[in-house]
Amino acid sequence: MMQEIEQCQSGYLAIVGLGPGRRDLMAPRAVQVVQACEVVVGYRLYLEQIGDLLEGKAVHVSELTREAERATLAVQTALAGLRVCIVSSGDAGIYGMAGLVLDILAHKLDEAGTTATQREPLVEVVPGISALNAAASLLGAPLMHDFAVISLSDLLTPWETIRQRLSAAVAADFVIVLYNPTSRKRRWQLSEARRLLLEQRGAETPVGLVRNAYRTGQSVAIVTLEHLLDYEIDMFTTIVIGNSCTRVRQKHMVTPRGYKQRETKGNL
Amino acid sequence: MMQEIEQCQSGYLAIVGLGPGRRDLMAPRAVQVVQACEVVVGYRLYLEQIGDLLEGKAVHVSELTREAERATLAVQTALAGLRVCIVSSGDAGIYGMAGLVLDILAHKLDEAGTTATQREPLVEVVPGISALNAAASLLGAPLMHDFAVISLSDLLTPWETIRQRLSAAVAADFVIVLYNPTSRKRRWQLSEARRLLLEQRGAETPVGLVRNAYRTGQSVAIVTLEHLLDYEIDMFTTIVIGNSCTRVRQKHMVTPRGYKQRETKGNL
Repeated sequence: MMQEIEQCQSGYLAIVGLGPGRRDLMAPRAVQVVQACEVVVGYRLYLEQIGDLLEGKAVHVSELTREAERATLAVQTALAGLRVCIVSSGDAGIYGMAGLVLDILAHKLDEAGTTATQREPLVEVVPGISALNAAASLLGAPLMHDFAVISLSDLLTPWETIRQRLSAAVAADFVIVLYNPTSRKRRWQLSEARRLLLEQRGAETPVGLVRNAYRTGQSVAIVTLEHLLDYEIDMFTTIVIGNSCTRVRQKHMVTPRGYKQRETKGNL
Repeated sequence: MMQEIEQCQSGYLAIVGLGPGRRDLMAPRAVQVVQACEVVVGYRLYLEQIGDLLEGKAVHVSELTREAERATLAVQTALAGLRVCIVSSGDAGIYGMAGLVLDILAHKLDEAGTTATQREPLVEVVPGISALNAAASLLGAPLMHDFAVISLSDLLTPWETIRQRLSAAVAADFVIVLYNPTSRKRRWQLSEARRLLLEQRGAETPVGLVRNAYRTGQSVAIVTLEHLLDYEIDMFTTIVIGNSCTRVRQKHMVTPRGYKQRETKGNL
């Protein structure tokens, strides 16, 4: 499949998730795609993670907030007939760069229309182990049953929408994974989320806090919903809030597979 | 870290997700863990996927439905001081074997209590690329915004609970990922789910169907909620239902990152 990329005459555009950070949790396909590309685009911190793969390539480093700039550059490079990948941490398909890149690509292709002299590039999204997969594995097994994934960032989404989703998820007893719980500029959202969750879920509900999963400075804690705010939580933290059945079992956070299992546990 | 496993004197118990099926989407850590173990436990189909790694090991093959049997065997083997891993496809932490294994382990350790002569085994959950990551990558970028993951299997969960979650998720405009949409014995649940979703979401809502992701016989289709049932869907299919902003953009299913983005799209 490496050959397929290198023989591609009309450009190749890959959006690649690098996984949580440790090289042994990065898919071999991601390594292969980076190696096959002439141009690599990404945020500085992500590129450092794969520094050893970048020798001899054109590398475009950009700042974290310049997503549209990175995406546009990658698309234009592929449309020019080159092999390019845009990398991000975790899974580029979960709150990642994939949407922006595909949207800009579609926009450019629509513009070119049927009179396009350029051919469409080969497009590939390489999945990765995302923050939710990584956090769950370090906590034990909190995602054994239905769950909702909610970002607390209200930079691009009205808080009212986020609030409704939190309320709906807690009312229907989903396990809840929170992305972007807080940042230097956003402080009150997590506190407000906790207040909303406590309206319908017990104070003793287990909550998993995973910071820098599989990276330097990793920390993992299982706390309670009531005391959630007593711990250090930042933009590198993923939070997993148990449902009504989630328990702490010998240091692990475990959600049963089903709602009937509780009665039959003795049979295991 | 291989050394850490092999020098472990008090048993080692790993629960390993093998990813969707293709070897180049399996984490190197998963390969390493299987190689370091003396005993490997798993369902036949998953073990075939890693047949080349099993030479010289004690391999316990079991049928798909015997999860508790597999989990108990793995726990007992680790408690006996051996290095054992239990493997499953996708991510063992998402509707996978991790919960059952950790629950049984906790049960055995609780039973043994403080008088235990056996020491606790080293426990590791190795995350993997799950069906949701895999399906999203093949569809484009449907999971750019908040999403809910719901299993339609009512074998261990009352349908009323599933129904409430579907209704809550659609009302709060989550993208929805459906696991276990149907099986030979469960036919009506998907049809009922579609009916519920259509009460609050448009007939033209894009729906992604991914069958056998990254496996032999892979098929990927983007259809509409209205016509969902016209396609072949089985227990190997993952379904992704768009939210109110999800669009089909040049053959890809794309959900915008935010709710304000629609207005500024022209600026990209």
